[in-house]
Amino acid sequence: MGSGTLALPGILARYRAEIERELRVFLAERQALLYGMVRYHLGFQGPEGESIAGYGGKALRASLLLFVHEALGGEWTKALPGAAAIELAHSFSLVHDDIQDEDPERHGRPTVWRLAGSAQAINAGDALRELAALALLELQGCFPPAAVLRASEELDRAVLQMIEGQYLDLSFEEQLEITVPDYLGMVERKTGALLGAALRIGALLTTEDEEVISIFETCGRNLGLCFQIRDDVLGIWGDESQTGKSTMSDIYGKKKSFPVVLALNGPRGDELAAIYAQPTIDEADLQLVLQILSEAGARETAQEAAQDYCSQALAKLRTVELPPWAGEMVEELAQFLLTRER
Amino acid sequence: MGSGTLALPGILARYRAEIERELRVFLAERQALLYGMVRYHLGFQGPEGESIAGYGGKALRASLLLFVHEALGGEWTKALPGAAAIELAHSFSLVHDDIQDEDPERHGRPTVWRLAGSAQAINAGDALRELAALALLELQGCFPPAAVLRASEELDRAVLQMIEGQYLDLSFEEQLEITVPDYLGMVERKTGALLGAALRIGALLTTEDEEVISIFETCGRNLGLCFQIRDDVLGIWGDESQTGKSTMSDIYGKKKSFPVVLALNGPRGDELAAIYAQPTIDEADLQLVLQILSEAGARETAQEAAQDYCSQALAKLRTVELPPWAGEMVEELAQFLLTRER
Repeated sequence: MGSGTLALPGILARYRAEIERELRVFLAERQALLYGMVRYHLGFQGPEGESIAGYGGKALRASLLLFVHEALGGEWTKALPGAAAIELAHSFSLVHDDIQDEDPERHGRPTVWRLAGSAQAINAGDALRELAALALLELQGCFPPAAVLRASEELDRAVLQMIEGQYLDLSFEEQLEITVPDYLGMVERKTGALLGAALRIGALLTTEDEEVISIFETCGRNLGLCFQIRDDVLGIWGDESQTGKSTMSDIYGKKKSFPVVLALNGPRGDELAAIYAQPTIDEADLQLVLQILSEAGARETAQEAAQDYCSQALAKLRTVELPPWAGEMVEELAQFLLTRER
Repeated sequence: MGSGTLALPGILARYRAEIERELRVFLAERQALLYGMVRYHLGFQGPEGESIAGYGGKALRASLLLFVHEALGGEWTKALPGAAAIELAHSFSLVHDDIQDEDPERHGRPTVWRLAGSAQAINAGDALRELAALALLELQGCFPPAAVLRASEELDRAVLQMIEGQYLDLSFEEQLEITVPDYLGMVERKTGALLGAALRIGALLTTEDEEVISIFETCGRNLGLCFQIRDDVLGIWGDESQTGKSTMSDIYGKKKSFPVVLALNGPRGDELAAIYAQPTIDEADLQLVLQILSEAGARETAQEAAQDYCSQALAKLRTVELPPWAGEMVEELAQFLLTRER
């Protein structure tokens, strides 16, 4: 069985339906047109406002929040507003990211700005961020004010780091001298921070043990790095029919993804930099870039780095006492993150 | 003495220096380049990163929060993080608004997107929103978790309404049939909600009397409507050297501001609609628009509406027992909002 046909791992399958339900209920009373864009992005409705069954995203971050909460002995349904918040905050970043990168498609559908224009898409992203904050506050139904306030603070800090990462990512477009630590610092903010916060919030809603809370955050950040590096690999060598975005768009878009940063710092780095310094990249350039990446062993090194972050996450987690089912679920998720094709 | 040379009213003068100090201290430790855009927008630094003394905005919302807190017997310096939060949330909306409207200048300086490009300016706005949330959480130093959580919720709700208002405002650009209630519903969200929240938060940090809290919110919303309608008047008949933005840009930009909405619903409304349906407006159109506005008495009716909202706000406030100095300060502010030239 190829990894592309792997079933959804337990963590992603277990909480998915309830996360979707939570999001739908939360949005149900919001009927203004602004929320049409929000529902469209989340995959709850089509471009004409028609209802759609099913949810577009993997809900990785939200699922991990609930998983940690349950693994530490919490009643996971109580943490659902936190999960919805994390998912909405992630969606906020995607909607703005698509405008900034001028990405025409996401999950095989036109992006919000393509449908509504950039100006209104900015509002859609802003609304998602605000909805995230309001969803999180619904934790007040089951948790004391101090805990909700802390969760809110963790989310705010993580989102600000995510924006810092997005700032760096965009600024890399203008640069050709990007070191591997530069890249990793950017990804730790852009992707790691929110994943770290998801696990951290899941933990702090169950335990007051700061060491355990901190371990989960580190674990989440490492999973985030693993996730993003695998994403970068798929962005160049992925299967278009599975990733839902056109292959090579990362190279045509001159994105400084991890394999490219590795090769820029490799033996033919100057040559690669010269190609990336051009205003546009043509088919011949593309082939040359792929050859330089291949000679630098960029794909293998990237995959090894993803593996390494994954191992660090798992090693960290083994220092916490968890029920056996939880340990198994995490191992399975790690395997999925490393081999996923979409 | 013309109203253009009016000194800053007491409410705006009293808290200004401390609000600026609070914002500067809050941002001091944030040195990443992202925050350079934030400081630039706030008027703390120039386009090359050079420090600038003084603060660009009026800090109306932040000052009102502190004023209400003090008028109800609170120690206003304790509420400074809340004031900073309101000011940052307002700034967030301005940075995104400038991108959406493609406004080249604000307070006579190039807007953030002109300096850093739209993509990074989206990040600057997003960062301001997040900084607002984090500033508010610093209220924890002086107030119990439940009160901070409530203030946070009020801010979140208000910001979401503000985004709804911004959505409506942009959607009006595509429409010519806008009624006065449509317009007022938009402004109540876009401008009224945050002003209402400023007064509401100032109150709820001092008193638990829900009726008083609610009165202050209503008062803030009415002041917001007054403020925006006066802004709309200045956008057409203001003095460029005082408003800091080019006069007539609202008409050339075909903005459906209050005087225009009034005239669209007046005797020569169809004629005005026909002009606004054109792709662009030339000098001759402009003169015709001004004539139609004049015949409709749009300026006078708008100013009367501003006066009316102002009176409502003051009447509402007189139902609460306040120290005499506070009553006088509000009357003075109301007069300023009605007659300001910038």
